[in-house]
Amino acid sequence: MLDFRSVGITRLSAILVVIVGGVTLSAAIPGSGFSAPRPMANKAMSEASDKANLRIAAKDPSTKSKKIGIVLFPGFETLDVFGPVEMWGHLPEYETELVSQHGGAVQSAQGIETMTSYSFDDAPQFDILMIPGGMGTRTEVDNPEMLAFLRKQDRGTEWTTSVCTGSAVLAKAGILNGRKATSNKIAFAWATGQSSGVAWQRRARWVVDGKYITSSGVSAGTDMALALVEKLYGRTVADRTAHDAEYVWNDDPGNDPFAVKPPR
Amino acid sequence: MLDFRSVGITRLSAILVVIVGGVTLSAAIPGSGFSAPRPMANKAMSEASDKANLRIAAKDPSTKSKKIGIVLFPGFETLDVFGPVEMWGHLPEYETELVSQHGGAVQSAQGIETMTSYSFDDAPQFDILMIPGGMGTRTEVDNPEMLAFLRKQDRGTEWTTSVCTGSAVLAKAGILNGRKATSNKIAFAWATGQSSGVAWQRRARWVVDGKYITSSGVSAGTDMALALVEKLYGRTVADRTAHDAEYVWNDDPGNDPFAVKPPR
Repeated sequence: MLDFRSVGITRLSAILVVIVGGVTLSAAIPGSGFSAPRPMANKAMSEASDKANLRIAAKDPSTKSKKIGIVLFPGFETLDVFGPVEMWGHLPEYETELVSQHGGAVQSAQGIETMTSYSFDDAPQFDILMIPGGMGTRTEVDNPEMLAFLRKQDRGTEWTTSVCTGSAVLAKAGILNGRKATSNKIAFAWATGQSSGVAWQRRARWVVDGKYITSSGVSAGTDMALALVEKLYGRTVADRTAHDAEYVWNDDPGNDPFAVKPPR
Repeated sequence: MLDFRSVGITRLSAILVVIVGGVTLSAAIPGSGFSAPRPMANKAMSEASDKANLRIAAKDPSTKSKKIGIVLFPGFETLDVFGPVEMWGHLPEYETELVSQHGGAVQSAQGIETMTSYSFDDAPQFDILMIPGGMGTRTEVDNPEMLAFLRKQDRGTEWTTSVCTGSAVLAKAGILNGRKATSNKIAFAWATGQSSGVAWQRRARWVVDGKYITSSGVSAGTDMALALVEKLYGRTVADRTAHDAEYVWNDDPGNDPFAVKPPR
């Protein structure tokens, strides 16, 4: 849970200052970590600012001029989606939206159902696109509507990203041709088999090539999501976002504990 | 995404052996980590077993005799819920279900909507109960229906667990009286202010006291979830679950990078 969210964005900071009033927000962030949490306000102050934070947490179109679109499909991997949602869910300018082929509820590989706001037909152009992995990608690489939607969106994105075997679907759509990319390391042979036109990276928590960011499996997506926060808003905001989630960010894309060894 | 899931449970192993047929599942797990992923089957074998895995991933009541119930409320913190869902979502005996006061869709603090299967009125007795945190807990500590539901469920659980400020709601319900517990470290003053009857722990990624397991903020819930997997099925299965999610498990409950310093 994110209390006293004081990301260093002028716009949101201004809102926070107005709303929380007398609560002192610590602005200094040590470069080397966060062993000392911000001092807590007393209970009464906390409850007052909680209401303010709830308002900020709710979707407020007036402060959200850009859109992140996360593409769901049956059998998506739960954490592939919700690690990034956690890290992107309070960015000041970006609203995170879920989209699926037919709209409505979509069931993850773990059996939970999440509502999507858009179908492929009525989705707006997203500024940031993300496709997760999961067993459902085995179907989606052969779904022409999915591949066409990804190609169409990709032509207008600032960033096109994936978690896990989501990169296999991007690759099958031809979007990663000539690019460096990575994928889930346990399903690496299957994922990389979707396209020979991609320079697949065996040792990478995530890979950035131009506007394309592809991560390794499942939890690697959370590290990738923070890397994108850093690209958008700088290191201080990325560190603060990780800290607010009590998350120890693996911030080195070359630190891949699950790397695939090269063939002999 | 979870491929070739070979958790060392007799029941599930038997199912996997039957379904995946000729695919060789590596059973040996190095105690010190997973630098060498399991060898991948070729593409054809992968696709055959994918379908089998999708069947396993889907809810199959015949193999799920116990229930994990995760209690959602408006403004729950996204990762508090879905980190544990990722780690618990494929346990052989436990089906993970979401429940909320009125049933239906519930919006998280990050704005995404998740469907719940049960309302407080029609929920079955859960074997494992989990309540997440999030700004919504500020409302839920004063919601008598929530507190009554938690008390009623707790009387029949094997394990009662929380992530983040979920422990504040358990504490307010009186469930943690006389117990050691922890909570979100950034909202520690507010959370611990909900009950003076709890031995609140300032330095703990998670705390086990009897059947009660409470974790620190947000991502700490994922580490706690794996600790519960270890308690249910042993270390090998917990390690395998983390590995399949390419997750570096902080498996030491005393290793808390976000610990709160004692007052001077």
